Amino acid sequence: MSSKHQTFDLQKFLASRTNAVNQSLDKFLPGEKTKPATIHKAMRYSLFAGGKRMRPAVLLAAAQACGGKETDAMPLACAVECIHTYSLIHDDLPAMDNDDFRRGKPTNHKVFGEGIAVLAGDALLTQAFEIAAQCKNFPRYPHDKIILELAKASGSLQLVAGQVADLEGEGKKLSVAELRYIHERKTSALLCCSARLGGMSANCAPAQLAALTDFGYHVGLAFQVIDDILDVTQTSEQLGKTAGKDVAVQKATYPAIVGLEKSRKIAAQLTDRAFAALDTFKGRAVALEALAEFLLKRDR
Amino acid sequence: MSSKHQTFDLQKFLASRTNAVNQSLDKFLPGEKTKPATIHKAMRYSLFAGGKRMRPAVLLAAAQACGGKETDAMPLACAVECIHTYSLIHDDLPAMDNDDFRRGKPTNHKVFGEGIAVLAGDALLTQAFEIAAQCKNFPRYPHDKIILELAKASGSLQLVAGQVADLEGEGKKLSVAELRYIHERKTSALLCCSARLGGMSANCAPAQLAALTDFGYHVGLAFQVIDDILDVTQTSEQLGKTAGKDVAVQKATYPAIVGLEKSRKIAAQLTDRAFAALDTFKGRAVALEALAEFLLKRDR
Repeated sequence: MSSKHQTFDLQKFLASRTNAVNQSLDKFLPGEKTKPATIHKAMRYSLFAGGKRMRPAVLLAAAQACGGKETDAMPLACAVECIHTYSLIHDDLPAMDNDDFRRGKPTNHKVFGEGIAVLAGDALLTQAFEIAAQCKNFPRYPHDKIILELAKASGSLQLVAGQVADLEGEGKKLSVAELRYIHERKTSALLCCSARLGGMSANCAPAQLAALTDFGYHVGLAFQVIDDILDVTQTSEQLGKTAGKDVAVQKATYPAIVGLEKSRKIAAQLTDRAFAALDTFKGRAVALEALAEFLLKRDR
Repeated sequence: MSSKHQTFDLQKFLASRTNAVNQSLDKFLPGEKTKPATIHKAMRYSLFAGGKRMRPAVLLAAAQACGGKETDAMPLACAVECIHTYSLIHDDLPAMDNDDFRRGKPTNHKVFGEGIAVLAGDALLTQAFEIAAQCKNFPRYPHDKIILELAKASGSLQLVAGQVADLEGEGKKLSVAELRYIHERKTSALLCCSARLGGMSANCAPAQLAALTDFGYHVGLAFQVIDDILDVTQTSEQLGKTAGKDVAVQKATYPAIVGLEKSRKIAAQLTDRAFAALDTFKGRAVALEALAEFLLKRDR
């Protein structure tokens, strides 16, 4: 993998986009004191817990690569972040991964109780569609296409399917193919959807959409392989969540199946595939390239 | 309350519409063997557990009253039923109402475990938007309006708000106003949304939409008051779910606050208000009238 974008200031890009996304999310969501206050506190607690805003960043960078306006992409960036946050809240529940910490803070159900945590996830999932429906009607991608895109990526054949397969795979010896099935759905689906929605908000041409699909798919897979690697190599303090969890619950991961070195190679190969998908943008996808490289080199 | 519609065969209407809705739901949902099979089995288990399909019936009857086609209304009828079923699955969880039986069968989490039950609810909620996005683009009510309608009725200010207030109200002495706040959100919001979506699918005029809103609101409130009454007066066998549950967990209900006789009067008054809202349809809302009367007289 070559470093093609030494001139692009990714940290500045990420900081400014995180800021803009947070401001928009704050506007879209009911205030913390809006009745019933508990649910809005719980929704905002997890939504503003310091997430990396990777999916919104990919979405906004994809929109930029296609010459779109940030204001047109922003509702969709907020929608994918609501979906991501809902999936984390439910995934952390005792009946699922049973995690006490997330992003260095107690998980939603540890603070608000399980009942409210289930409802906060439900409300954020619903909120995502409410926000997405408020985007512009893009000529090539009218509202029905946008909603279908978001729903399919989050539904029982994709995001939820990944969670189910993940849950059912615990303690079992999985093949690499079975593991990839999980990663494609648990992580890649929503990242791929983010890249595609970014392009759609720029009314992109079909060839650009295909390139973004290819990019999002491979970046998503790389992202999850690296997540698995970090779970083994980093401490809980570094990650802001319980490290070594995968080994403890005998979760199938790339390091567990193919070893750490091979896992690192796979992550690098997937990232290269993601880079290759961006060729069609001829240098206008600097933000996406920088993001992909950053995701490969991240340490938390 | 007068009986205005002795000639209308409601049982035939309900049976044929239930049948049509079930067939459509079966087509919209992935098959039981679609991978991952567990989640599709779990979704279908609750979706086809013999629900009364009241919300789809109200939606289809509202469409009919406005001169709409059933095929145009059907995706929306399926969407509201998916939302209703998701809310029941999550509501039955141990962290919420902790119910073991629903419609005479073990609840979703008793059969599939809590983790899958949470995910089956999530998937059905997502599926609702996927289905709704597949409706026609109605001139007065394009896709964004339809999705907003569904999301708002199901979100943190309506359906979820009702669940939260219900959860937080257990064991507390509530006023009639506080109880109505819960009923408006927990039950009325989605019934009102069903009536409105039915009208929208018929591209109804604004005055008709206002009448359907009024109708749905009052029928929804009446429905919940009667639900509370039945919990006190019927056996578990008659209801197909645990009777006497409200008293056992000291849930605030109309019978608990104002007594059984007053509750019956309130239900009848609310139903009369619903009837009055239908005057504007000048006899073309026979199905809606019959439904409202049926809901008042039901014994389960």
